[in-house]
Amino acid sequence: MSQILNSSFAFCQPEVVLDIAQCKANIQKMMKISRQAGITFRPHFKTHQSRGVGRFFRQAGVKAITVSSVSMARYFAEDGWDDITIAFPINLREWEQIKGIASIAHLSLLISDETSLLKISELDFWNYPLNFFIELDTGHGRSGFRCSAEEILPIIRLADENQISIKGFLFHDGHTYQTHNRDEIRKIRMATLTMTAHLLRDLEMYYPGRKFLYSIGDTPSCSIDNRYEGIDEMRPGNFIFYDLMQYYLGSCTQDEIAVRLVCPVVAVYPDQERAVIYGGAIHLGKDFLIGPDNKAYYGAVCFHGDFIQWQGQYPIAILSTLSQEHGVVKARRDFLEKIHAGDLLDIVPVHSCLMISAAQRMIGTDGTIFDTLSANFRMDL
Amino acid sequence: MSQILNSSFAFCQPEVVLDIAQCKANIQKMMKISRQAGITFRPHFKTHQSRGVGRFFRQAGVKAITVSSVSMARYFAEDGWDDITIAFPINLREWEQIKGIASIAHLSLLISDETSLLKISELDFWNYPLNFFIELDTGHGRSGFRCSAEEILPIIRLADENQISIKGFLFHDGHTYQTHNRDEIRKIRMATLTMTAHLLRDLEMYYPGRKFLYSIGDTPSCSIDNRYEGIDEMRPGNFIFYDLMQYYLGSCTQDEIAVRLVCPVVAVYPDQERAVIYGGAIHLGKDFLIGPDNKAYYGAVCFHGDFIQWQGQYPIAILSTLSQEHGVVKARRDFLEKIHAGDLLDIVPVHSCLMISAAQRMIGTDGTIFDTLSANFRMDL
Repeated sequence: MSQILNSSFAFCQPEVVLDIAQCKANIQKMMKISRQAGITFRPHFKTHQSRGVGRFFRQAGVKAITVSSVSMARYFAEDGWDDITIAFPINLREWEQIKGIASIAHLSLLISDETSLLKISELDFWNYPLNFFIELDTGHGRSGFRCSAEEILPIIRLADENQISIKGFLFHDGHTYQTHNRDEIRKIRMATLTMTAHLLRDLEMYYPGRKFLYSIGDTPSCSIDNRYEGIDEMRPGNFIFYDLMQYYLGSCTQDEIAVRLVCPVVAVYPDQERAVIYGGAIHLGKDFLIGPDNKAYYGAVCFHGDFIQWQGQYPIAILSTLSQEHGVVKARRDFLEKIHAGDLLDIVPVHSCLMISAAQRMIGTDGTIFDTLSANFRMDL
Repeated sequence: MSQILNSSFAFCQPEVVLDIAQCKANIQKMMKISRQAGITFRPHFKTHQSRGVGRFFRQAGVKAITVSSVSMARYFAEDGWDDITIAFPINLREWEQIKGIASIAHLSLLISDETSLLKISELDFWNYPLNFFIELDTGHGRSGFRCSAEEILPIIRLADENQISIKGFLFHDGHTYQTHNRDEIRKIRMATLTMTAHLLRDLEMYYPGRKFLYSIGDTPSCSIDNRYEGIDEMRPGNFIFYDLMQYYLGSCTQDEIAVRLVCPVVAVYPDQERAVIYGGAIHLGKDFLIGPDNKAYYGAVCFHGDFIQWQGQYPIAILSTLSQEHGVVKARRDFLEKIHAGDLLDIVPVHSCLMISAAQRMIGTDGTIFDTLSANFRMDL
């Protein structure tokens, strides 16, 4: 992202800037991976949460998408997306809203525990074009059933008894985010493929010829591992923008990070090796990495429109603390002497999803303004 | 907050619920402290960010407020607040917006470094009813000038030369948030009072008879320390809701916490001592406390409408991890066996400011809906 913006945008407040060419390149990269693996590409839209960015995918030929909430499903269904998976345990309290969306789009829903399945069986699900997936916990330890025939067979049986047709299995290897390098990510992918292959083989014994889809998530493993044996669909999301965490995991290069927060500088203290920007926890979220001093940091700091400068494996300027609206920049005196209150600094985020979720718009490098889901909040929900 | 809500509100999504009676009691408590200290009460509105809650203060007789951004100043100025301090280093890039607000309200602005002062001197500030304060760094190490005559005298001289009239000094002892008990908070208050008393005495030598106001912030010290010698104004904000962090600092009782996030349960795994709620990092922020196992946790979990249950100094049920929309509840099997997908759980937040900032509305215990600044986002900014 060598040139951030050639428009005359004023940058009065912290603004998310989007490198449109890089976004499109990231889409092409992941589409190529899915094409080579011969599987469906169903990108997760929770990272960008924006109709405008969604249209880049549509222009590239994507037809099926993933979202993480019912509100997000509605937002994209209203923009013409017709095949939407809500990759979040079904929220029974939004049944009416789900049915509303199902009247304009094909929805796939996730069953993540037995109670949910039993409660769905009491609802009027058969009137709507809904698909159901069983969520598998392949090691992340968040939600889903354990990935074993022993656990899954009774659930399929119960679903069948209640005429709830199970289309397949969905899993998200979120534990790839706790790894330290590409080898550890590959180990997780291999373990998951082994588990799902066992499940596939066991189910084939009980239900010969019955086809279940297997849908895999997570940007780290989809970015670096091309093994998809037995997998029908991939749902990465973060790759559209990537971020500093992904860079350290080995999922992307520095150049592939397509988003940053442009922030006004409001105070500079070179002798204290510190500056303050307008840009805080409410803009970036508080996900962090560990810096050279073993302390948390919340983003890499660059001169506006410039690259990250490195010293060894760490950026030379970092966001060392975040308050509600304040970001504290820590850098050497010679870096800080080049900036002044009223200037701009760019922040490469640790976790782009949380930054975008907090934003109500993004500015493209060509000056286009993209609104996001949160700018479309409705009080009637 | 024994009874959360007696309205028929459906709670389909994570919703912030506000105990209105407790909010009003918290306002009265802090007003009483300011009255007894004989100083101005200028509450910080960044915690609630809501016109509706602002009106509770107005009904209680409050006339002067603090905000943390220009947008927030505009939001409250448009609701009739006439005396507003923006307790954030002046953002020179919003000068046009500042002048716009200054045409409908009296604004006080903060000068936090020398460049800002020099740049203000080149602007058309004299046409507007603006006050300027010098920000002091009394030990927090975020923004402001060091609190010494040596550092401050040249700044006042420079301001005088440029006809920028300095009304006083503003400081925020944010380092009280890094303490572990009330004694440490009191030590910080004492250190600040000593520093500012020295400054006051030194300035009196150079500018005999010239009156400067001294304005102090931070909920922890204002909640527990009644020493305000030499102080003219207090600006706490968090006390309106308090939160778990304040409870552990000793700033409030459990009953004084006036806000929680009500969340749908979406999956329960009693045998794994885990449940999943719809309510994640985008709803709560990621500020954390350290739990009994030395790991981070992101909130206390209660049955809907019930109190926190404790085991020693820790809640028996906690939010152990947060993803974008998922909250993972960790609790014993007997707790989890009482809840099911489709039920509600209440989260007492670690940091209420970040939770509210992420919310676009709050629901009062009487069913009133309060919108917030972020529901009033404007693309034209």
